[in-house]
Amino acid sequence: MTAVEKTAPSPSEVRAAIRAGEYQGHTSGMCPGYAQVNLIALPRALAYDFLLFAQRNPAPCPVLEVTDPGVRTLKKIAPGADVATDIPKYRLYSYGEPAGEYTDAAKLWRGDFVSFLIGCSFSFEADLIEAGIPVRHIEEGRNVPMYITNIACEPAGIFSGDMVVSMRPMTPGQAARAAVVTGAMPRVHGAPVHIGDPARIGIKDVNRPDFGDAVTINEGETPIFWACGVTPQAAVMRSKPPFAMTHAPGYMFIANTRDVDYSVL
Amino acid sequence: MTAVEKTAPSPSEVRAAIRAGEYQGHTSGMCPGYAQVNLIALPRALAYDFLLFAQRNPAPCPVLEVTDPGVRTLKKIAPGADVATDIPKYRLYSYGEPAGEYTDAAKLWRGDFVSFLIGCSFSFEADLIEAGIPVRHIEEGRNVPMYITNIACEPAGIFSGDMVVSMRPMTPGQAARAAVVTGAMPRVHGAPVHIGDPARIGIKDVNRPDFGDAVTINEGETPIFWACGVTPQAAVMRSKPPFAMTHAPGYMFIANTRDVDYSVL
Repeated sequence: MTAVEKTAPSPSEVRAAIRAGEYQGHTSGMCPGYAQVNLIALPRALAYDFLLFAQRNPAPCPVLEVTDPGVRTLKKIAPGADVATDIPKYRLYSYGEPAGEYTDAAKLWRGDFVSFLIGCSFSFEADLIEAGIPVRHIEEGRNVPMYITNIACEPAGIFSGDMVVSMRPMTPGQAARAAVVTGAMPRVHGAPVHIGDPARIGIKDVNRPDFGDAVTINEGETPIFWACGVTPQAAVMRSKPPFAMTHAPGYMFIANTRDVDYSVL
Repeated sequence: MTAVEKTAPSPSEVRAAIRAGEYQGHTSGMCPGYAQVNLIALPRALAYDFLLFAQRNPAPCPVLEVTDPGVRTLKKIAPGADVATDIPKYRLYSYGEPAGEYTDAAKLWRGDFVSFLIGCSFSFEADLIEAGIPVRHIEEGRNVPMYITNIACEPAGIFSGDMVVSMRPMTPGQAARAAVVTGAMPRVHGAPVHIGDPARIGIKDVNRPDFGDAVTINEGETPIFWACGVTPQAAVMRSKPPFAMTHAPGYMFIANTRDVDYSVL
């Protein structure tokens, strides 16, 4: 991993390029070893309901940082970063409907927005690769495939919805090793929530993800599913709050913290 | 551990005895292998500030369950248990001052109380004993010693304060093993926050705890400190909300969930 890191740009360099409009792609495989992070920003009046939703659903919604209302500057996971400009693509939701994608959200930022920064499974992919486990969407230069399941989240206040998962295909032996590696990192989703038959969790066609890109599943490989930080967007689609600003799935905030910062081992 | 469990009363039996007023002591060493839990109940108007305080201070405040406002019946960690009657001793705080201790809090319960159930280090003591590590306060039949430190918590809304810690003396070798055992259980406080010199974290006299009982520190033993779920009470003393109902330190709620339910291993 060291060789990659020496030549790869740092998180702050990547965020500066994103802020300047020089990079607008998805962030899969970028800054290996650093934490990638989901965003949902909501009006203060909805913040308690959402924070409680996250507390009740820690696998899909491990909260890493919460801003005070109206504050765009982060303190903890990337001090000084601007949560309204440093993500390559934002998605606005209005009453549960996608209402546009933006490469800069500053003009749309509300003075009462509270931002929730939530761990992302992209964070542990460098560890999977180090452990000799393939990460197919990185191999194929694609975004990770994500699916809305029939696994109900525990509701909180106005928020309810089904869990969103990300999928990585691998052999059963690799899956066992991947469970050990990721299980030690509950703050970036932890161990898989499902192994095998997609239909068992309500996924009709594994080749047609709800978010991101389809990837090749080779002979002898099984789809392995992890809880995903796009779950809040599924809750927004179900619960229809007047406003919610999120990242576009797969277009993540890249933090200064490292995946190992979220390991209990 | 199995032999102990077969003869020991179950959590629901212990809670029934507490509810009936038949047991009013501290809960150190009771129901080994089951999770013990801290309580703080606050008016709904303060719930967001407190939940955010807990999110920002996960070592002392790992939240296991949050009730809806006015609801006394738990759903998750002990379905059907009554949070206002099933703890052996409650402590009421009024504007930050202790305002009485009660063995039944039902008459004082407010219709807008939100209850936060927070992991407790008593949960992992059976694992320490299994690992051959002494738990001195259990050996001596006392409550665990707890101290207010000079480790500042990250503030949230009205809440700020210093971390409270619990202490167990052991040899340095036992301490290393205890760190491994408890480090895998972040939802019941995880690894120690300090090892050794109490003065380094602002404790003037290790023989005079702020809560609980002093215990013997033998020759060759070092005090080992864990984040403690009494930290919310220190925050209440600093932040002075009009009402807060808590457990009395060491007089815990005993859940149906087990310590292993909170291990990532």
